[in-house]
Amino acid sequence: MTAYKDFKPLTFHDSTKGFRDGNDSARAYLERCLETIAKREPVVKAFTAINEDGARTAADASSARWKAGKPLSPIDGMPVAIKDLLETKDMPTGMGCDAFKSNFPKRDNAAVWALRQAGAVILAKAVTAELGGSHPGATTNPFDATRTPGGSSSGSAAAVGANMVPAAIGTQVGGSIIRPAAYCGNYALKPTQGGINRGERQATSQSTHGPHANSLQDMWQVAIEIANRAGGDRGAVGLVGPSTLPAAAKPSRLVVLETEGWPEVDAATKAGFEAVLKQLAEAGVTLIRRKDHPWVEALEQSIANGRATCNGVTSWENRWYQRGIVDNNPEGVSARAKATLAKAEAMSTDDYRMALMARENAQRVHSTMAPLADAAITLACPGPAPVWSGDVPGQPLAARPTGDFVFNAPSSMLFAPVVTMPLMSVGGLPVGVQVMGQQHEDARMTGLARWMSETLKPVSA
Amino acid sequence: MTAYKDFKPLTFHDSTKGFRDGNDSARAYLERCLETIAKREPVVKAFTAINEDGARTAADASSARWKAGKPLSPIDGMPVAIKDLLETKDMPTGMGCDAFKSNFPKRDNAAVWALRQAGAVILAKAVTAELGGSHPGATTNPFDATRTPGGSSSGSAAAVGANMVPAAIGTQVGGSIIRPAAYCGNYALKPTQGGINRGERQATSQSTHGPHANSLQDMWQVAIEIANRAGGDRGAVGLVGPSTLPAAAKPSRLVVLETEGWPEVDAATKAGFEAVLKQLAEAGVTLIRRKDHPWVEALEQSIANGRATCNGVTSWENRWYQRGIVDNNPEGVSARAKATLAKAEAMSTDDYRMALMARENAQRVHSTMAPLADAAITLACPGPAPVWSGDVPGQPLAARPTGDFVFNAPSSMLFAPVVTMPLMSVGGLPVGVQVMGQQHEDARMTGLARWMSETLKPVSA
Repeated sequence: MTAYKDFKPLTFHDSTKGFRDGNDSARAYLERCLETIAKREPVVKAFTAINEDGARTAADASSARWKAGKPLSPIDGMPVAIKDLLETKDMPTGMGCDAFKSNFPKRDNAAVWALRQAGAVILAKAVTAELGGSHPGATTNPFDATRTPGGSSSGSAAAVGANMVPAAIGTQVGGSIIRPAAYCGNYALKPTQGGINRGERQATSQSTHGPHANSLQDMWQVAIEIANRAGGDRGAVGLVGPSTLPAAAKPSRLVVLETEGWPEVDAATKAGFEAVLKQLAEAGVTLIRRKDHPWVEALEQSIANGRATCNGVTSWENRWYQRGIVDNNPEGVSARAKATLAKAEAMSTDDYRMALMARENAQRVHSTMAPLADAAITLACPGPAPVWSGDVPGQPLAARPTGDFVFNAPSSMLFAPVVTMPLMSVGGLPVGVQVMGQQHEDARMTGLARWMSETLKPVSA
Repeated sequence: MTAYKDFKPLTFHDSTKGFRDGNDSARAYLERCLETIAKREPVVKAFTAINEDGARTAADASSARWKAGKPLSPIDGMPVAIKDLLETKDMPTGMGCDAFKSNFPKRDNAAVWALRQAGAVILAKAVTAELGGSHPGATTNPFDATRTPGGSSSGSAAAVGANMVPAAIGTQVGGSIIRPAAYCGNYALKPTQGGINRGERQATSQSTHGPHANSLQDMWQVAIEIANRAGGDRGAVGLVGPSTLPAAAKPSRLVVLETEGWPEVDAATKAGFEAVLKQLAEAGVTLIRRKDHPWVEALEQSIANGRATCNGVTSWENRWYQRGIVDNNPEGVSARAKATLAKAEAMSTDDYRMALMARENAQRVHSTMAPLADAAITLACPGPAPVWSGDVPGQPLAARPTGDFVFNAPSSMLFAPVVTMPLMSVGGLPVGVQVMGQQHEDARMTGLARWMSETLKPVSA
């Protein structure tokens, strides 16, 4: 275990100079990752499969390209872990679900294909909560093994937080990229809805792929290399932006969002977040809160039932798929997932349509208020990762074993891009702060995040 | 074979009175369908699987419900064929592709589930062109076995045209519902994009499920019963409308669209279509052509490359999925499908984005002109179904073995609802005429189609 205060994040972008001039190589970089994995993985348990041989072959090819001065992209040779919901041609895809234990479709998700085209080394599959829901896998938080890494992109976030890989791919429907990233000290991008081609993962209307990384450089580079090759989702132009990390951009005005999560935030986390805001104000950034402007209050109200809206939309959209899994293999699905399915099957078409209407109303409010500020800022999680010691036999299932997505539901339902930054530690554990923009402002949010990360002092609370 | 002039379409809606009063039953209706199948199927070859036992069990249950005065819906007991791209729990799903020969996922597509909930009898799987593309299956046109039934919903259209079932489910990405329906004398609805829940078939951004039937009553009833139970696609409110066939509605003004297909239409078909328009004019409907109003000309221009736009969008969106199939089973995919994949793999992300931009521009033009007329009217196919005698060994593959979708690309790329009606016969074969509305005007288009079908005299040319 590494104490978070001693965390020295593993990055990739600053290694490639050495690949080119011969002081380092993609293969050597990979071997360092494998050494860290040997040390950390027995406790962190981030992976369901590691393809060492394939990774070494890919890294050797990358080493040769760099040496020849012909890398395929700036992420050529980057070891990447792929959330185990996405198909990979060389590793099984278990989806965190017993029913998919022997699932090995031997094909690449579009984003995985794009990463390979860019020369990235597809090293491992990362643990996902079951079917991308809330039933947790074995992964522990890299900074405290008694705590959850968050989910459902549990392994992706923990692998990056444990320095086992510099970047990983996660997916989010409600809060599955940003929450675990915030608990594990990652930077992460949850793109505008449709930003990155989901390939076969077209399950729900508000799901996205996104990168976890230990630096904004690596985060952005992974995202743009995928989008440049595989584009966005079907029917979406997808992520468009500069070919390397956007320039740092200081915001003039930021909306401060409470969301429905504010009452649940502990005092230390609140104090830490206020200390971040204080630094922004001191830097000359105007902060606009719900009491300051009726548009902010209108947005807060439109997202006040964000968790319920996201849960309603998503469980309805998954119901036929999940019914098929349960019918074919009743023992292969957890009681927690079955309870979600039961809730979905109790919904009517009109219940779903009302949830969609709530979502579309909130999107309209959000787009209307675009001129008010450069972005919104809020916590990326309600506090440090909670302790998770497993369900207690005979007791009701715990409600949120991978933590609460209350701060993530808004951007998910708004289809809005967010970047989380590890700007705070609370009780010695990472807590993320996120900026949220209008749809298609992914590059702008990354530029704002860069300015904040370069300007603000990390806060301890 | 039945000559089209002698065609007495098999309908369902007018049979249920007998189910209730005991003069007929759902089981007896099914048996009549099975008798027709025994006669026609050896030549028409509409089906890949027929579940006689399951259908009889379902029909008996339906008979009992009608007798008890408690049908689940107006389509309780209706024998329906399902395009073999959609999963059904009791029949294999072969997708017209050798690579899926043994595919039997034992689960129901959301629309199939909804049909069962409504009491419909899921009788058979209907032949699809390979993977919903253009490589044809064995099905022949029910009115001339030397001709194509159209595709890709070949079996769905032919089964209805041969009176083997009163209704069938098809799917359309470019022209796969409306074209075969028009060639086989069906009524059919290609709904607004997102109108009917596609379940696991979320492959492409402009695909829809839709009903083929021998009457507008059955067509509408099938659509609304599905939509009321399974809603629309993920993120879409889906089809909303009256619980039975909308009232007949006479249009005041109709835009007459040529599309890029007009130069390809033969003289007899043109004369037939003009005869339909003449009847409309005589009934007092104002017809607005491209020479009459610049908005119509603008729409014509925006859809002038509709085939290329649809092909570009769709082949790109399918490329990773199809690459996976080919990599896993190179012999299991036709040369025709492989050629489409090769074209997709030659596209860049920006090529795709330009196709999307063309599509979105056309949609904007179309929505802007909404107040100009009640609907647009055009041919549903360029003429009667062409002869198809198979590819010639050693020769290049025929370009469009299931016919040309040139009159269908516009509504597909516009996400617009269309209803095709069997208003014409040309050279003794059916040719459809379609009305197209603004998005979400499915019920209005059905009401216009009802008025036309009840008012206009069928045209022979």
